Amino acid sequence: MGDALRVALAGLGTVGAGVVKLIEENRALIERRAGRPIAVTAVSARDRTRDRGIDIAGFAWHDDTAELAMRDDVDVVVELIGGSDGPALSLARRAIAGGKHFVTANKAMIAHHGVELAGAAEAANLALKYEAAVAGGIPVIKGLREGAAANEIGRVYGILNGTCNYILTTMEREGRDFAEVLSEAQALGYAEADPSFDIDGIDAAHKLSILASLAFGTALDFDAVAITGIRELVAGDIAEAAALGFKVRLVGLAEANGKGLFQRVHPCLVPADHPLAHVQGSLNAVVAEGNYVGRLLFEGRGAGEGPTASAVVADLIDIARGEYGPAFAMPVASLAHLPPAPAGERRGRAYLRFTVADRPGVLAELTAAMRDANVSIESMIQRGQSGDAGGDDPVLLAMVTHVGPERCVTDALARLEGSSSLAGKPMLMHILDL
Amino acid sequence: MGDALRVALAGLGTVGAGVVKLIEENRALIERRAGRPIAVTAVSARDRTRDRGIDIAGFAWHDDTAELAMRDDVDVVVELIGGSDGPALSLARRAIAGGKHFVTANKAMIAHHGVELAGAAEAANLALKYEAAVAGGIPVIKGLREGAAANEIGRVYGILNGTCNYILTTMEREGRDFAEVLSEAQALGYAEADPSFDIDGIDAAHKLSILASLAFGTALDFDAVAITGIRELVAGDIAEAAALGFKVRLVGLAEANGKGLFQRVHPCLVPADHPLAHVQGSLNAVVAEGNYVGRLLFEGRGAGEGPTASAVVADLIDIARGEYGPAFAMPVASLAHLPPAPAGERRGRAYLRFTVADRPGVLAELTAAMRDANVSIESMIQRGQSGDAGGDDPVLLAMVTHVGPERCVTDALARLEGSSSLAGKPMLMHILDL
Repeated sequence: MGDALRVALAGLGTVGAGVVKLIEENRALIERRAGRPIAVTAVSARDRTRDRGIDIAGFAWHDDTAELAMRDDVDVVVELIGGSDGPALSLARRAIAGGKHFVTANKAMIAHHGVELAGAAEAANLALKYEAAVAGGIPVIKGLREGAAANEIGRVYGILNGTCNYILTTMEREGRDFAEVLSEAQALGYAEADPSFDIDGIDAAHKLSILASLAFGTALDFDAVAITGIRELVAGDIAEAAALGFKVRLVGLAEANGKGLFQRVHPCLVPADHPLAHVQGSLNAVVAEGNYVGRLLFEGRGAGEGPTASAVVADLIDIARGEYGPAFAMPVASLAHLPPAPAGERRGRAYLRFTVADRPGVLAELTAAMRDANVSIESMIQRGQSGDAGGDDPVLLAMVTHVGPERCVTDALARLEGSSSLAGKPMLMHILDL
Repeated sequence: MGDALRVALAGLGTVGAGVVKLIEENRALIERRAGRPIAVTAVSARDRTRDRGIDIAGFAWHDDTAELAMRDDVDVVVELIGGSDGPALSLARRAIAGGKHFVTANKAMIAHHGVELAGAAEAANLALKYEAAVAGGIPVIKGLREGAAANEIGRVYGILNGTCNYILTTMEREGRDFAEVLSEAQALGYAEADPSFDIDGIDAAHKLSILASLAFGTALDFDAVAITGIRELVAGDIAEAAALGFKVRLVGLAEANGKGLFQRVHPCLVPADHPLAHVQGSLNAVVAEGNYVGRLLFEGRGAGEGPTASAVVADLIDIARGEYGPAFAMPVASLAHLPPAPAGERRGRAYLRFTVADRPGVLAELTAAMRDANVSIESMIQRGQSGDAGGDDPVLLAMVTHVGPERCVTDALARLEGSSSLAGKPMLMHILDL
């Protein structure tokens, strides 16, 4: 057995405590697999006295997180503080400058500063690892960086946010509305008090930008991700989608070709027989399409104490084994810089839902706008009101277009903007015909 | 860029030709990802002149495969000959003895001789890699060896043979019988002329024993795998299973605890909402359950030129990067030797199908045997014949038991052995309630 790999932990929230528990509980196994022990030597968190269900008496304590980077008895700093900048970023820079390997679960920091940190780690021959940053316990960073490394990847996509998938699949199962299910998820601890990072798609976009970089060998470009969350969805959307043979999922999708890099997080209609349609509750799933391997699917728990700790310690085992290399699968200097690809030229089917006044002429106005924008309609559902025809309440009108350029659908919606027939903002979802 | 990693290829069948094509087509990308070029320098196969759709003029040719291990311009030998012993094993031993890394897609050889070869590679500080040996292009060896390395794995199971899954899902979709679908699969090239390794479960058992070793840190024990293939299945089994809410899949399953290692390949009833129930056609899927990560699922193409070549070249990229270590996740000396766990003490539900004479008293005899063996019946389907009651043709009688020890079901079947009421061997399938 070699010397222990000595670890400093910054952040002792749920995940940090989980890492301590895992290293303790699976100690003998980890030592066999890593070829050497993995030992926590120092920790830092906001509150030394809080009960976390773990014994931290054996670890050196630092009130100042930054000091972890300067200890002589530390080989790896693990950052579980969160936040794209601030103390997390400062610690990352100091740790690498101080000759420590660096492991993080921080998707926001990697999405915004991954290239800088990877360059610094590379120059110092250190590991920068972040398996826990994307899809929790699912080894999808490893799957792309190594497992699919022989392939030209054309497309990577998936369900990257468990909170949204929990909300969507609960809406689907129980026929309830978004706001109600969100409140319940918050009460149960499945959604944050401020849920905007999750439900507005930011969290999924952070992860998507990381997957895209690994898949395509491109520099991270978070700012180029087009993002739409799930706030505007109503129960009727899920019901109409089901009637048309689809499930609704928040999908992050990235495609690259010689001309550009397309990245989008968007609620999508997924055909009921597509693997992503089977992903229930807070699970995550990632699909990568390679030119030799075909379609690969990885599924599992994307968040939470156990899965995230599993990914962090997997990174530590790689480091203990000496099996690590460039963070984004190739040296930073080799990463390509692709311009963002415009969505408008993409072709596909779309779902459009209008909330309309129930009066004569409305349907004619909508369909005329479609015709004028060259959008061809494949199917349409209008549910009559339960009472007499022609009531005062707005009704839902859902349609699916034939395959066509996305810009035509955008154009049709622009033509309808401000129309008095519409009782609310139309809902647009793309159809995942993959 | 570093020096090229120089590769000798033994075997230029479908997969060997695929490896040559992949290395050529994705050359620039591989060089960026691996940090150095990967170049084939020498090849060996049976027939030098056969048209394989690749140009081998630039490679040194050897009629004698063993000579590849002795070339000075070779860093890695890739073995794609097949067969557990013979030339493949001889080449493996010579290559490692000659200081070459060794990559193989040969599940039979790894299942039978993996520990010996891993020990030799370990002693010489060489890589022994075999991602392509299990589930083709799906990076499941890497997923277990590295991705889930922090976890105590309690169970690993999956659909490990694409030919069987193709046959079963075709029977399911088209309501046809085994023999007919097999013949068609052979005509289409989806099944071998001699299909016994696939349909009798041997191939899946080779793969299962490899997964079990990696998952549990145990020495390979292929001989302890209990194996039942799919030959005895009839269309009625799939129909009755469907009526009861299940799909039929050939599942390889391994479990370990302190007392023993259980390994079995067996056609199973999979609940329709289980992820394995969605695995269609020739796809493979592997599930691993870790004590921190929970349930991980890997799905993709388990065979064929492209996926297998993808896995072989992923191994080569790991070697080019210097990111490799002990073949079975830990040094051979650390592998545990667990005794085979008996199936009898396992508890679960079972599906039993009897082909019975359609005459009075048969049902009473069967149910008495169940009662006497302490098997409790949860549900039963007997389809009457289409003509008058009490015809001469045998009828199918299918039942699902309540949860109980497997030995009771075995006992019940033993009690019925030789009964004149049975028109054929009963069919037993376990139910995958996981």
